[in-house]
Amino acid sequence: MSSTIGSLFRVTTFGESHGRGIGAVIDGCPPRLPLSESDIQPQLDRRRPGQSHLTTPRKESDTVSILSGVENGLTLGTPIGLFIPNSDQYPKDYGHMGNIPRPSHADYTYQQKYGIRASSGGGRSSARETATRVAAGAVAEKLLHAVFGIEIVAWVASVGHHEISPVDSLEIQRTAVDASPVRCPEPDTANRIEQEILVAKEDGDSLGGTIGCVCRSIPAGWGEPVFEKMEAVLAGAMLSIPATKGFEIGSGFAGTRMRGSRHNDPFITKPHGLGTVTNHSGGVQGGISNGEPILFNVAFKPVATIGKPQDTVDFDGNPVTLEARGRHDPCVLPRAVPIVESMAALVLADLALRQKARG
Amino acid sequence: MSSTIGSLFRVTTFGESHGRGIGAVIDGCPPRLPLSESDIQPQLDRRRPGQSHLTTPRKESDTVSILSGVENGLTLGTPIGLFIPNSDQYPKDYGHMGNIPRPSHADYTYQQKYGIRASSGGGRSSARETATRVAAGAVAEKLLHAVFGIEIVAWVASVGHHEISPVDSLEIQRTAVDASPVRCPEPDTANRIEQEILVAKEDGDSLGGTIGCVCRSIPAGWGEPVFEKMEAVLAGAMLSIPATKGFEIGSGFAGTRMRGSRHNDPFITKPHGLGTVTNHSGGVQGGISNGEPILFNVAFKPVATIGKPQDTVDFDGNPVTLEARGRHDPCVLPRAVPIVESMAALVLADLALRQKARG
Amino acid sequence: MSSTIGSLFRVTTFGESHGRGIGAVIDGCPPRLPLSESDIQPQLDRRRPGQSHLTTPRKESDTVSILSGVENGLTLGTPIGLFIPNSDQYPKDYGHMGNIPRPSHADYTYQQKYGIRASSGGGRSSARETATRVAAGAVAEKLLHAVFGIEIVAWVASVGHHEISPVDSLEIQRTAVDASPVRCPEPDTANRIEQEILVAKEDGDSLGGTIGCVCRSIPAGWGEPVFEKMEAVLAGAMLSIPATKGFEIGSGFAGTRMRGSRHNDPFITKPHGLGTVTNHSGGVQGGISNGEPILFNVAFKPVATIGKPQDTVDFDGNPVTLEARGRHDPCVLPRAVPIVESMAALVLADLALRQKARG
Amino acid sequence: MSSTIGSLFRVTTFGESHGRGIGAVIDGCPPRLPLSESDIQPQLDRRRPGQSHLTTPRKESDTVSILSGVENGLTLGTPIGLFIPNSDQYPKDYGHMGNIPRPSHADYTYQQKYGIRASSGGGRSSARETATRVAAGAVAEKLLHAVFGIEIVAWVASVGHHEISPVDSLEIQRTAVDASPVRCPEPDTANRIEQEILVAKEDGDSLGGTIGCVCRSIPAGWGEPVFEKMEAVLAGAMLSIPATKGFEIGSGFAGTRMRGSRHNDPFITKPHGLGTVTNHSGGVQGGISNGEPILFNVAFKPVATIGKPQDTVDFDGNPVTLEARGRHDPCVLPRAVPIVESMAALVLADLALRQKARG
Repeated sequence: MSSTIGSLFRVTTFGESHGRGIGAVIDGCPPRLPLSESDIQPQLDRRRPGQSHLTTPRKESDTVSILSGVENGLTLGTPIGLFIPNSDQYPKDYGHMGNIPRPSHADYTYQQKYGIRASSGGGRSSARETATRVAAGAVAEKLLHAVFGIEIVAWVASVGHHEISPVDSLEIQRTAVDASPVRCPEPDTANRIEQEILVAKEDGDSLGGTIGCVCRSIPAGWGEPVFEKMEAVLAGAMLSIPATKGFEIGSGFAGTRMRGSRHNDPFITKPHGLGTVTNHSGGVQGGISNGEPILFNVAFKPVATIGKPQDTVDFDGNPVTLEARGRHDPCVLPRAVPIVESMAALVLADLALRQKARG
Repeated sequence: MSSTIGSLFRVTTFGESHGRGIGAVIDGCPPRLPLSESDIQPQLDRRRPGQSHLTTPRKESDTVSILSGVENGLTLGTPIGLFIPNSDQYPKDYGHMGNIPRPSHADYTYQQKYGIRASSGGGRSSARETATRVAAGAVAEKLLHAVFGIEIVAWVASVGHHEISPVDSLEIQRTAVDASPVRCPEPDTANRIEQEILVAKEDGDSLGGTIGCVCRSIPAGWGEPVFEKMEAVLAGAMLSIPATKGFEIGSGFAGTRMRGSRHNDPFITKPHGLGTVTNHSGGVQGGISNGEPILFNVAFKPVATIGKPQDTVDFDGNPVTLEARGRHDPCVLPRAVPIVESMAALVLADLALRQKARG
Repeated sequence: MSSTIGSLFRVTTFGESHGRGIGAVIDGCPPRLPLSESDIQPQLDRRRPGQSHLTTPRKESDTVSILSGVENGLTLGTPIGLFIPNSDQYPKDYGHMGNIPRPSHADYTYQQKYGIRASSGGGRSSARETATRVAAGAVAEKLLHAVFGIEIVAWVASVGHHEISPVDSLEIQRTAVDASPVRCPEPDTANRIEQEILVAKEDGDSLGGTIGCVCRSIPAGWGEPVFEKMEAVLAGAMLSIPATKGFEIGSGFAGTRMRGSRHNDPFITKPHGLGTVTNHSGGVQGGISNGEPILFNVAFKPVATIGKPQDTVDFDGNPVTLEARGRHDPCVLPRAVPIVESMAALVLADLALRQKARG
Repeated sequence: MSSTIGSLFRVTTFGESHGRGIGAVIDGCPPRLPLSESDIQPQLDRRRPGQSHLTTPRKESDTVSILSGVENGLTLGTPIGLFIPNSDQYPKDYGHMGNIPRPSHADYTYQQKYGIRASSGGGRSSARETATRVAAGAVAEKLLHAVFGIEIVAWVASVGHHEISPVDSLEIQRTAVDASPVRCPEPDTANRIEQEILVAKEDGDSLGGTIGCVCRSIPAGWGEPVFEKMEAVLAGAMLSIPATKGFEIGSGFAGTRMRGSRHNDPFITKPHGLGTVTNHSGGVQGGISNGEPILFNVAFKPVATIGKPQDTVDFDGNPVTLEARGRHDPCVLPRAVPIVESMAALVLADLALRQKARG
């Protein structure tokens, strides 16, 4: 288990879908930052299940408490303990499939790694774990916004074959993203995606997609070559989110088909110093931010839990047909938007403090 | 600077394109592993410049020495120091463009981050830095092969618009990859790519592409959820390679357009336990290896150094036309193959030791 | 703030004397270890205030809950969240001395470091923080005992000028230590120390002393040269306990006055391999355990909170006479015994896993 | 092996007494610091063997080269590679005692830990390893002096039973320390120690002692509670030096015999803010520097290599009489002075950068 991320703004998470609850400890948040639960709850609400007809009807309130590190509304510079109780802390009855590793879930791999696994709901591999990332990420965002004016906005860029046109990364706001339950800022595409999700739900099937993200007002100079380059730590953070299969920054995979003369971003003067005419680089050069918006995409596979029967084998190798019961999301993309934002915030807060140490 | 990667098999690199040389320290390599320079040199030779008519004609021998940690041909369990002297250790004369940040290079960002930068050749952002990764990676590979029989093979999967058909990941060998100077194992595509590179070279332009990689015989159970999942550390390692813009594992971005019922990998029995029928997961589930081959792709942008004139501005914001002189690769993909393999080996060696600690 | 210790058995703590509570997250505890709150509570009870007439009369129950990482009485290999609620979570009224940094307390240094400090009770520098070390240490001890049969016993070796004769480190048990409220295993000395503590209490003064500790059945081979030698990490762990001023292993400071010919520990054969005739080394050579008992002492200064008036200055530099009110221990040594044991257990559990990774 | 120390000013060392040489990589040294070999060599010269009639007559020049990270006399912010060649890189003939673990040396424990060990001279447990600490420490000292005006001075405080009176920690300079070959700043005691060392040498025996150290002009606010308190990281760093057995800060073990009313350090106003009347705390409170000088002592056992015959057993358990040949120091204290200073500098440089990150 490696449940800690970051070196100076360092977050450690704990908890699974059963048990008393889940939480995070933030060690290294600078002192004297105004902070209360109300800074954190809104992002948790964007992530929680049951928020629209597109997600699992299972409702969890996901109410966060600050356990330590804050007094009179200000951080003390000491570890900030965050806790979200589980509404139902006892293992659920997954008895009918206790001996069947669900395809493309982590039942088999956890069993192989630990020789034991949580009896219900995926344990630590459950999407529930991501609530603690969102809680900690909200604190990181608060810091980044307060000190640097940084804005982080993610959105659903595609679901299945439906893909939006390039977003105006200088302007897009969360209000536009949240205008549809799909969290896709292009209304027509949002509608098509909504329909597609409802069809998949009806079919007992599931969908994947991509999330785009922009981070604005990042000062030039963040990122720690050679192994903790900005894009390297972002990639690592994004691929640690459950169900992710890919990451690309700037021109990404499409950029591999350009020639250098077109791909290069020439410099020009901008109000705050040098900037670039184009941004194929996605805001980084040599692993260090260049002052332009940081732009990246994250790929999410279709949800592994489906209603359709699946032919597979049990842990003993006997052929079985697995039919999942229960309630689950046909598409996690809308709820994954705040998770992507949160992981970006955790990465940026850490790199910010590391650059400050150098200054 | 963050020049250390790994927690138990830990590698620290140093050195830039000027100065006496570059090197790496491997701390945590298990004792009693047979090791000599001849285990390392072949991969360095696959990376070095000047190995074919497709790369820069600049020749560097890149000869590695083991400085410590090995006695009588066996590792001692102590830090292994590796050193590669620079053939020309004095800063080169880049005087004509000293005040011009090269577009899509790291001149500007290093200057912003450190308030100083190497006077020549990109310093630490130079591709030369990757030789130390390859040297250390060769030691990791030796360990992985000796203890687990692991094989890691990477290849050029596309350059520009030329892309090969899916590779037989169970069978592909380095000999097939090295059959063409392009390191693309499909002869027809290799030929087309070779022509394309020569045209780009003629044009003073450059090309990008993708590298595919497979890691075979990885035992089930490697990877450290939740923040150091196998795919997360691989992504971070790959995006730390200069010029990379994307990473995808298994079905990757294409998988986002599948439905779950097709994407899921059902289990079957295989000789050594459970396996999966398909491998859209790319060998990992929940961040942990499942015993199937690990499969991923890495995107490389076109080389930033081009011969064509570029309209940009100097550090003071004055418009200039930059014309690069000197010799450089029109396409780094063939030489990047051993770099990708080496970074994979470094990641796997570390995760192997971490799982061993649990056992 | 650096609230994490260990690299493979890694503990992160949070919480201060006000706020909802204090806790710890243990990441890396091996799976399938039997564990429940009843394994942890006894050591917490040995540390809690109010357990005898020698300690502060303030009573806190210090009841621990396991929040995660355990199911059906077995560890899952996932992070173990531990939580101890604060009985009184609101800042206490220390108003009368809000502007006076208490001599030899951390009020001044926290204010200088963070520009803010907890309004009561020392916040994170409070002895209350150590309860989380004891809780996590009890889990480490459980692991060490279950897997290796390791025993860790600490005792009060001196208070003020009263010092016991050398302890039989092969035999001493916690029952002998706990036979007196002083936790000194030599009854006569225990009596004299008890009287001395009561006199100091009467005087509104305080006492320091030393704690001895033995760790038995440590296999040869633990400790990570060159910077994380067994004695180095033990020293660091012990000096992180509040009020400590010194550490010595084996012959320690007294050994500096011996000649080598007397200090050297010659080898002999023992049932389980080579052992040493004497143990001036304290169980380590070259930073690695040699199979003999590990023996060390820790120095604690007299408690900084005293009832006597003290002439000092306030934060603005104005001379004041400080008279502490409230209830506090005249001597922390008896309660510090389980803290020393716990920190030793945390160190050993981490080194055990690190050696296992090598094997 | 754990050959890395520090988190932001991070040093990794490599090399043993045989092999091509030893070295260090400093990652995280701030950019634009003036630096050349001449900043490093003087401390190496204070550590090297053969510098006086009191040390081993074996001569090594220990000449350091900067391999990377510096250009035109300024640090680049990139890793600084340091290298010291071994004058005789081939394993020496220790054949006559190849099967005998030397008492109180690390032959036995290295063999137990790694299943292999260097065939000569202790390998990585050799005192030779400390040269790399001194080289890296000299860079840390340069930084600390340039940015904060910090001075670090260590001295021999005792050898065997000869102990100096308390040193004036506000005034003592290295010139006074180096006035005698013993590095004891009190001439009478220095003379007595010198005689004692010569007698021990004559006897084929060895001596231990203590080194005192003061760090001046440390700003208030350095140190990272709770696990990386100033005294904790200093203790860990000092106990990682070969042959050390103890550490104490401020009043140390003697302070355990004081009452709190005498031990507490009342505050007064000083030119740069609050200070303390006495300094029993040794410059730290709650693990954080308070602006007063940091004062500590380190205990060194007598050298394990002695000329006298020793009755011991070989690796197979057969009784043998070991008679060491060759040349060695009867007392390492004079040469350990720059090692203690260097480790203090490494600790302080790291804590300085960590506090800067918070600011």
